[in-house]
Amino acid sequence: MSTKRDFADITDSLAAQAIELPSWAFGNSGTRFKVFGTPGTPRDPFEKVSDAAKVNELTGLAPQVALHIPWDRSDFVALAAHAADLGVRIGTINSNTFQDDDYKLGALTHADERIRNKAIAHHLECIDVMDETGSRDLKIWLADGSNYPGQADMRGRQDRLHDSLSTIYDRLGEDQRLVLEYKFFEPAFYHTDVPDWGTSYAQVSALGDKAMVCLDTGHHAPGTNIEFIVMQLLRLGKLGSFDFNSRFYADDDLMVGAADPFQLFRILYEVVRGGGLNNPEVAFMLDQCHNVENKIEGQIRSVLNVQEMTARALLVDKEALAAAQSAGDVIGANDVFMDAFYRDVRPELAEWRESHGLPANPVRAFRESGYLEKIETERVGGTQAGWGA
Amino acid sequence: MSTKRDFADITDSLAAQAIELPSWAFGNSGTRFKVFGTPGTPRDPFEKVSDAAKVNELTGLAPQVALHIPWDRSDFVALAAHAADLGVRIGTINSNTFQDDDYKLGALTHADERIRNKAIAHHLECIDVMDETGSRDLKIWLADGSNYPGQADMRGRQDRLHDSLSTIYDRLGEDQRLVLEYKFFEPAFYHTDVPDWGTSYAQVSALGDKAMVCLDTGHHAPGTNIEFIVMQLLRLGKLGSFDFNSRFYADDDLMVGAADPFQLFRILYEVVRGGGLNNPEVAFMLDQCHNVENKIEGQIRSVLNVQEMTARALLVDKEALAAAQSAGDVIGANDVFMDAFYRDVRPELAEWRESHGLPANPVRAFRESGYLEKIETERVGGTQAGWGA
Amino acid sequence: MSTKRDFADITDSLAAQAIELPSWAFGNSGTRFKVFGTPGTPRDPFEKVSDAAKVNELTGLAPQVALHIPWDRSDFVALAAHAADLGVRIGTINSNTFQDDDYKLGALTHADERIRNKAIAHHLECIDVMDETGSRDLKIWLADGSNYPGQADMRGRQDRLHDSLSTIYDRLGEDQRLVLEYKFFEPAFYHTDVPDWGTSYAQVSALGDKAMVCLDTGHHAPGTNIEFIVMQLLRLGKLGSFDFNSRFYADDDLMVGAADPFQLFRILYEVVRGGGLNNPEVAFMLDQCHNVENKIEGQIRSVLNVQEMTARALLVDKEALAAAQSAGDVIGANDVFMDAFYRDVRPELAEWRESHGLPANPVRAFRESGYLEKIETERVGGTQAGWGA
Amino acid sequence: MSTKRDFADITDSLAAQAIELPSWAFGNSGTRFKVFGTPGTPRDPFEKVSDAAKVNELTGLAPQVALHIPWDRSDFVALAAHAADLGVRIGTINSNTFQDDDYKLGALTHADERIRNKAIAHHLECIDVMDETGSRDLKIWLADGSNYPGQADMRGRQDRLHDSLSTIYDRLGEDQRLVLEYKFFEPAFYHTDVPDWGTSYAQVSALGDKAMVCLDTGHHAPGTNIEFIVMQLLRLGKLGSFDFNSRFYADDDLMVGAADPFQLFRILYEVVRGGGLNNPEVAFMLDQCHNVENKIEGQIRSVLNVQEMTARALLVDKEALAAAQSAGDVIGANDVFMDAFYRDVRPELAEWRESHGLPANPVRAFRESGYLEKIETERVGGTQAGWGA
Repeated sequence: MSTKRDFADITDSLAAQAIELPSWAFGNSGTRFKVFGTPGTPRDPFEKVSDAAKVNELTGLAPQVALHIPWDRSDFVALAAHAADLGVRIGTINSNTFQDDDYKLGALTHADERIRNKAIAHHLECIDVMDETGSRDLKIWLADGSNYPGQADMRGRQDRLHDSLSTIYDRLGEDQRLVLEYKFFEPAFYHTDVPDWGTSYAQVSALGDKAMVCLDTGHHAPGTNIEFIVMQLLRLGKLGSFDFNSRFYADDDLMVGAADPFQLFRILYEVVRGGGLNNPEVAFMLDQCHNVENKIEGQIRSVLNVQEMTARALLVDKEALAAAQSAGDVIGANDVFMDAFYRDVRPELAEWRESHGLPANPVRAFRESGYLEKIETERVGGTQAGWGA
Repeated sequence: MSTKRDFADITDSLAAQAIELPSWAFGNSGTRFKVFGTPGTPRDPFEKVSDAAKVNELTGLAPQVALHIPWDRSDFVALAAHAADLGVRIGTINSNTFQDDDYKLGALTHADERIRNKAIAHHLECIDVMDETGSRDLKIWLADGSNYPGQADMRGRQDRLHDSLSTIYDRLGEDQRLVLEYKFFEPAFYHTDVPDWGTSYAQVSALGDKAMVCLDTGHHAPGTNIEFIVMQLLRLGKLGSFDFNSRFYADDDLMVGAADPFQLFRILYEVVRGGGLNNPEVAFMLDQCHNVENKIEGQIRSVLNVQEMTARALLVDKEALAAAQSAGDVIGANDVFMDAFYRDVRPELAEWRESHGLPANPVRAFRESGYLEKIETERVGGTQAGWGA
Repeated sequence: MSTKRDFADITDSLAAQAIELPSWAFGNSGTRFKVFGTPGTPRDPFEKVSDAAKVNELTGLAPQVALHIPWDRSDFVALAAHAADLGVRIGTINSNTFQDDDYKLGALTHADERIRNKAIAHHLECIDVMDETGSRDLKIWLADGSNYPGQADMRGRQDRLHDSLSTIYDRLGEDQRLVLEYKFFEPAFYHTDVPDWGTSYAQVSALGDKAMVCLDTGHHAPGTNIEFIVMQLLRLGKLGSFDFNSRFYADDDLMVGAADPFQLFRILYEVVRGGGLNNPEVAFMLDQCHNVENKIEGQIRSVLNVQEMTARALLVDKEALAAAQSAGDVIGANDVFMDAFYRDVRPELAEWRESHGLPANPVRAFRESGYLEKIETERVGGTQAGWGA
Repeated sequence: MSTKRDFADITDSLAAQAIELPSWAFGNSGTRFKVFGTPGTPRDPFEKVSDAAKVNELTGLAPQVALHIPWDRSDFVALAAHAADLGVRIGTINSNTFQDDDYKLGALTHADERIRNKAIAHHLECIDVMDETGSRDLKIWLADGSNYPGQADMRGRQDRLHDSLSTIYDRLGEDQRLVLEYKFFEPAFYHTDVPDWGTSYAQVSALGDKAMVCLDTGHHAPGTNIEFIVMQLLRLGKLGSFDFNSRFYADDDLMVGAADPFQLFRILYEVVRGGGLNNPEVAFMLDQCHNVENKIEGQIRSVLNVQEMTARALLVDKEALAAAQSAGDVIGANDVFMDAFYRDVRPELAEWRESHGLPANPVRAFRESGYLEKIETERVGGTQAGWGA
């Protein structure tokens, strides 16, 4: 029923894949109940970049590191040079409008013009950083929202959001972009000012070509068909970037592919289907919290999960699938699709990795590298990095 | 803290309110497990219109009846005359692309051009009906979707949907509109071709000014903030109509306001806030199934629920609310909002209703009217109307 | 990190596996919107059993067929003989308390004693059938519930449920059992009288050792960790049977493993972990609806999905897993677990199947067998079986 | 259709109502993104008790304050005396097994005996506190769980949970109880060791009569019918206590009644129906986070919400309801139920409150009392209390 594709057919695509790592994944994170620290956690952006570079060294998949302002404030020229020394680059700049006392009831949407202007100014500062680091993308995730019905005027906030974004958009350089992330809930519990892809799409469409939607795989209502949204945003030309992670319940920020590997497969299939793979318009990025597992291992496992699923998605026998689909052969089409999902691509990937001078098993290689012991010994004293610093 | 509005301030708005009734609510409906019939159920569109007119007679709230094609195929001129005799009009025309064997795997999105054309032709026939009945709106709810990953090419279907809708749109008369309903799931279980407001918005925006979004309150993922969507669509000028009902789990199609009265209040507050009340652009309609309760009583109770919640929404002390909101007084703003929700408007509504020649308690009036006994006696023989006929 | 188990280590367990097929899966089913018929659909229980036997013939996995009363009412002795001729047996007897007009507002829980007694009598009749067919299990799934708050007295219904079940329980033969299925919602939309495992557990515990819980994998709230319930019920000695299927949203009744293969793996791992595999106490059964796909192929694919995932679950390297778990090695333990999930067991299973005289690819074998063409030709006239008959 | 009950009929029940306040509600709380502090926040348990006493003073509803160990460690005899001076008592003692580094991967269920023993010892210390404060209830909420499939052996953990609880249970004094809280997810994201009422019920049933279930209204899967669980636990004699709050999405810990007032009504109706109101076996308690609203006002509003809904639940016309229910009058029964919900009991409650020497509007009375200004002035310096201290 199917004319399978060979692994050799997809290696060029795999070789071109790049997944950006978030600097904050290497710092401590947790829940409102507790943030557990671990020996070896970075104390500053330089150490975070070092850890990220280690992931890239072992996987060849992660040449860029995203920064979060103000958590990663530093000498950005020196930081970029440090990154370059380790074979990586500074990538997306992420703003933060949720930790200043002024933002308790909103930032870009706040009823008070003074606070809106402060939040806008923060984004302009982020663009300054982008100019220094050579970053292309400004990622805006807003915690803006409300906890109680009646607390806020949702309509007025939406209009103010447009105004604030417009000011920020106007400051973008010619080759710079703004990506607007949406999120179903949290930290606001009644309404979120950018809760769904439709809102992000409507807002960025009103700005212009340099504004795109950012899709975080953990930011949807239960049961949402995420690959449909991927398909739709690619179709509309507005998928700017991914924040990959996985979830069972809410925005769990688990390792991508850990909670529902088949969903990751379906998402990556639509990426391939819609021309989003290795397309410079669509940035792949992780956004995860390693609350209980080792952070560097967690990042390695995550980029490997994306790579393995990309391989499976690329291996879908398109001709057989199209034939079964147009024949209305439900079982047949599903079989072709599942056949790629169930292929164990790991041995071929390991071999291919080795042929490119990379370890066959990057997690094991990390464990055997002594890197963890080294940072545990060296990174003593100071304050471990986390979401607060 | 609040300068309450008086009931007298809102009676003009209440007097103008109109809620369209669906003809099919008077026929039998049920679940995949069983459709229970009841004595007195209409056998044809004329009897459905009679029942709908009874609801309007007792409530003054329901001057229009929506039809569903082919369920309500008949002599439309005669049917319109019958309606007029009873003081009501024919309203929205609903198409059906889910009960013909050809549509098993899709209609407007089907891979097979023949089937797409058949589905398009059905919609053109519906516009012919609109011409006969003088209806303004063509409502399109699509069952199109798939049950299994890989079964269908979601991207291709989206493109074909656009093409099919364009052909239908082009046939609309100058004063006619197309409203596109979205639905999270059911009857398709893996993907739905119009699953969310974002997709409906993107599709209708690509058509033109005469295409709008239809929001069915039961067609969202669990936890969705529906009033936010109402706000957003009103803001974007694309809220064409409501299908009211309520739900605990899926698309339960229970009486509007029955499952979460506070949600209905919040929705209607945003309607009022956004200028959607008594705005000809925004059609109010019920879409419900009375599986276990009396159908006519169910419709009476439902329009009353909408009316009562509209009254509460109109009674929100806007000035006090705005003041608390801009002061960042969370408890205060929520209190103003809840104060309107908790007002028992029923006695004043009953009095006002009586002053307009309507019964104080329409459900009781119906029970005492003898209408039910009459139709139980008269409607013997024939086939009771349901979703199938 | 792991000492992998060989396929040869698990073939005995695989050889012992048996999955019961529901007779109704071979009849037509659908949604409240439409039931699509297909050529070749059985017209009576004998033809259903023939189709089920075909599945068993091609897979060696399905030696039993469950019946549903009254849908499968017939000469049960003749039916059992027909089954035996084809190499299968009659299994679980399923009662039906949702299609009689009397049961509109409840059956075993109904406020009216007459209706409760009628529902009890139906179950006693089912036990009579069990005596004839030699079946062990009576499966009770109740549609009892309510659609509106206040409609019913939930507490009184729970007490009446206990009384009704007690009467039925007392009629069970020495080697017979009652399994009580729970379901989150549908067809009732506000409350269900047996909504969760806790209620089923409390009810069957009050009856005695011959009453057990039936877990349908599609009958839970969104996000429920089903494998935890499997673990708990096995631990409490009360897991009587499985109804396998899969879902994206509600009780979609899709092919098991189709929506979330990893969840099926986790469930089967807990079955293995808790001693539930090939344990006579725990019956494996499918309960699915093949609304758009070929029904016989759907059943074949489903039992294969269970078999393949069972193989993967059996291949988990228990020692390596236990070692990583007790070392608190989160990534390591997850890796061992995922390693088994990602193994492509299909080639080894195909080979093993052939060595047992079964086709390597049962779906393809079915397509090439001519069986479908045969029944399409032969089964002309009469009324196709469905949920109504 | 209904013979309404008078407000005078229910005042005795209202007068007896008592709702315990959690000390931690007066400290700072927030999300993983940010904890916002506010002027006047207590620095120690004594100041928390003072704030709680203020709530009781203004409402007459909250005579007890629950403590959390270790957050409230202090001279408990002095603290109890301080409480008595202000007219309140120390109530439930809550343990904490989620903030010690040792508990990262579990506490009472941990694979390591040393850590289990440490967690057990903490609970024995809590019982010592109970002996000092004269508290009856030890509340155990466990953060135990895992984030990744395979990370932990769920079955072994369940058995160890039983063993740990048994040791704690054995230490309880004759008049002391243990209540075991369940929670769907968070802070663990894959599995929770006590995820649902069924697990809590099975565990406490295995302990004995002094162990009961604690139901937190925010700890369920989306769509769960919570009032059904209330009914069932009352029926089974195992409802030990409530943790009231409300939610839109996850465990939002909003003010009780804020998200879904009708749900609170239904819950309280089942409490009344099942004999749980003013029943010493069933403790009413709040467990909330006032992230953005004033904390003392938040607690006042919350106890008032419970009181108002209790009044409405008590006003349900039981006879009319029972009559409609047994007549199978769906609309009628729902109407009787809704009639009580829609009654605006606030004016009568305000009057009754005044007749008992309490302010008609306790929130306004608080705002006019000068208490907030006083604590803002006095509580300067030191460290504001929060979840960490």
